[in-house]
Amino acid sequence: MEKAEIGLIGLGTMGSNLALNIAEKGHRIAVFNRTASKTDAFVENAGALKGRIVPCKSLAELADAIRPPRPVIIMVLAGKPVDEQIAALRDELSANDIIIDAGNANFHDTVRRFTELQGSGLTFIGMGVSGGEEGARHGPSIMVGGTQESWTRVEDVLTAISAKYKGEPCAAWLGPDGAGHFVKTIHNGIEYADMQMIAEIYGILRDGLAMAPKEIAPVFAGWNEGRLNSYLIEITAKVLEADDAETGKPVVDIILDRAGQKGTGKWSVIEAQQLGIPATAIEAAVAARVLSSFKAERLAAEKAYGTLEVERISGAKDALLKDLELALFAGKIAAYAQGFAVMEGASKEFGWNLPMPTIARIWRAGCIIRSQFLDTIAEAFGKSGGKGNLLMAPAFITMMKEAHPSLRRIVARAAEAGLPVPALSSALAYFDAYRQGRGTSNMIQAQRDFFGAHGFERIDAEGAFHGPWGMEQG
Amino acid sequence: MEKAEIGLIGLGTMGSNLALNIAEKGHRIAVFNRTASKTDAFVENAGALKGRIVPCKSLAELADAIRPPRPVIIMVLAGKPVDEQIAALRDELSANDIIIDAGNANFHDTVRRFTELQGSGLTFIGMGVSGGEEGARHGPSIMVGGTQESWTRVEDVLTAISAKYKGEPCAAWLGPDGAGHFVKTIHNGIEYADMQMIAEIYGILRDGLAMAPKEIAPVFAGWNEGRLNSYLIEITAKVLEADDAETGKPVVDIILDRAGQKGTGKWSVIEAQQLGIPATAIEAAVAARVLSSFKAERLAAEKAYGTLEVERISGAKDALLKDLELALFAGKIAAYAQGFAVMEGASKEFGWNLPMPTIARIWRAGCIIRSQFLDTIAEAFGKSGGKGNLLMAPAFITMMKEAHPSLRRIVARAAEAGLPVPALSSALAYFDAYRQGRGTSNMIQAQRDFFGAHGFERIDAEGAFHGPWGMEQG
Repeated sequence: MEKAEIGLIGLGTMGSNLALNIAEKGHRIAVFNRTASKTDAFVENAGALKGRIVPCKSLAELADAIRPPRPVIIMVLAGKPVDEQIAALRDELSANDIIIDAGNANFHDTVRRFTELQGSGLTFIGMGVSGGEEGARHGPSIMVGGTQESWTRVEDVLTAISAKYKGEPCAAWLGPDGAGHFVKTIHNGIEYADMQMIAEIYGILRDGLAMAPKEIAPVFAGWNEGRLNSYLIEITAKVLEADDAETGKPVVDIILDRAGQKGTGKWSVIEAQQLGIPATAIEAAVAARVLSSFKAERLAAEKAYGTLEVERISGAKDALLKDLELALFAGKIAAYAQGFAVMEGASKEFGWNLPMPTIARIWRAGCIIRSQFLDTIAEAFGKSGGKGNLLMAPAFITMMKEAHPSLRRIVARAAEAGLPVPALSSALAYFDAYRQGRGTSNMIQAQRDFFGAHGFERIDAEGAFHGPWGMEQG
Repeated sequence: MEKAEIGLIGLGTMGSNLALNIAEKGHRIAVFNRTASKTDAFVENAGALKGRIVPCKSLAELADAIRPPRPVIIMVLAGKPVDEQIAALRDELSANDIIIDAGNANFHDTVRRFTELQGSGLTFIGMGVSGGEEGARHGPSIMVGGTQESWTRVEDVLTAISAKYKGEPCAAWLGPDGAGHFVKTIHNGIEYADMQMIAEIYGILRDGLAMAPKEIAPVFAGWNEGRLNSYLIEITAKVLEADDAETGKPVVDIILDRAGQKGTGKWSVIEAQQLGIPATAIEAAVAARVLSSFKAERLAAEKAYGTLEVERISGAKDALLKDLELALFAGKIAAYAQGFAVMEGASKEFGWNLPMPTIARIWRAGCIIRSQFLDTIAEAFGKSGGKGNLLMAPAFITMMKEAHPSLRRIVARAAEAGLPVPALSSALAYFDAYRQGRGTSNMIQAQRDFFGAHGFERIDAEGAFHGPWGMEQG
């Protein structure tokens, strides 16, 4: 029998869709699942692609079915299952074979696994995959970390199955060991901020302007034709249009306001903190999800503080809608600036030399945050080499100059109306602090020197100095 | 020779002040420093306290000088030096002796050290000390973690040297192993938020109202007589009054706006994230310090975006100052609510059973965030047992109801004027999200279900559901 080009373990939703995608692009693939019946069912339902799928009943059979050097994708639950799968697989593979973890791993685990496999003859790839089920099936964005040699071995298959942006594949090798999973983590962190800002704007339309879902839907649909054009804005409009089959009400109105999370947002924030890079819009988005989960506490607080009597946001509606669009855009710029800054920090810290323009390019299609905006980032980074804060790229200076007045008006109106805008206000505060040449932390340094003799720098001389607090010290 | 009651290693600023404090309270203390000349100089300068200080030239001599079971305070640089000191000390101590780390340790290290010493016969205390040099010398706030038995052995000395609030000592045993250092970390996190909010209000007065330091000083001095009465507000007024000897200018004007940090703020944020407790005001404060350190980048951004033309904040000045006072107070309530919530989360996670009312009580004097406000918290927690969010304590509901309208007016004015208020706006967004019974994360859940089939809860039925997106999926 003809050998398969690649193997895949774990036929859950993501795994089976990825396998079908690979087969569809003309690649022969060997598959294995712990529960053998799942493997059978999968092949049974593969239709015309059946001929390119080799079902295997054991890892030994899987290894035997693949042409060496063998690339084997693992798509199991992140964490311990990945380690167990690697351990089981090691015995069946031979020199130069490649184990590819395509799950949402914490990049620290990826670095550890990469190191553990070093010297074994095998090599390891940590691969971030974004795009949900549909992406896995028809074209995800693929972020690869590992050796460049191992990438060369799998490049053809991965670029073939990836999403395409105007013909360019959204798959790339981004750097050694944990680079791919790190970039995927930050992708998700940005996604948190993106979604939270959309939810905040939706909240202003719903509660500040008393608009019904069906009235809000065309607003987002309209925005999707302009600078905000993106998958998330597109699906927001669709979500707002959809009705619940049971009640006939708009679906968004019957969904409980309690959001879940799976950890990548939190990881983004922790890594940003470890690196010392501000990522406040992402932090605000993660906190907002946590707060949303405190449903009972929030209901009690509403009772204690009184139901919010929203002062309806007034003013010409067209101007207000324009402000909301630009506010969302300005907030988005700041959030992406933070996300890319975190990646730049990690790139330096871990010596990865991450290719920022490439990252922006492979996010233009396939992934959840895909958008026209990312093309603009790719272009800006293409010119700058991706060095420096996004807020300092000429195209973004122009866009931000146009958009930030709207962001400040919306944050101000929401603050007055009592509508929570944690991510938008964090984005604004970040921008305002970033653009302020003379900040206010001279006061903080004075206090620190006063109570802890930490010393301060002067504006007019080099060195460390102390204030004349002397005997006044508390 | 009469044996000492306690030993101390490390005669740096904090260590020597702590040793003098112990001697002054009538306790005989044996001291050791790696550089012996420092020990000699210390004793030489101890004046009348000399008689109660036993200088030691070696760890063996130190051990011999203390009455068993021996408590030995280590006050060396956090990190590796602590481990080295413990290793060296173990050989000289015997069963039931107590090693006390009084530095700013990460509580994870404290837990590890506690565990490592278990079974050795020795025991370990992780002790948070706040109050700077002056506090160490005349009365710090002392937060102890370890076994209750070891606390009993050192309780007399520690309560004697601690600050007193209306006669009550600001020292207490808070729980096992890492509890003391954890509480000290969150103390510092809250301190970051407190200082940042003061700096933001100072910025509004300086840039929004064009007031000179000498005009701002009496504002803070006045606030210090009211609800904001606290050490940090007091020293802010003093800082603003002080002139630079060199130039004759207000000192605060010649201090560079680049703030330092030593890690406890970052640790607070990381632990809050790990625990899944929102601490956005602390996060904003840590991010603000980081941004302040990007001085060159900020100057470049100011050039790119144009010097801020602050729209002067107008309105009746008295009303505005009242708003600023109440805004700062409301922000403070939210930040403390977050800090205490993080401690409550840790208490559950680690099974510490932290005594919240006690924590508030021992922060009323001695430490950097000491204030009248903490007495109000102590009282509220005394009634509630410290369970639940501070925002839900009746006294705080009343105060917050009075203060939050000012916070939203100030955040709105600052947003419009382009003055960065990251911590204040995060505090407001936290409060607004917390008090909102029906939030906007129904939109986020809809999106997550749309692209990832994550499912959502309904408001009208139990279970997990999916939306009618079907073939529309992107």
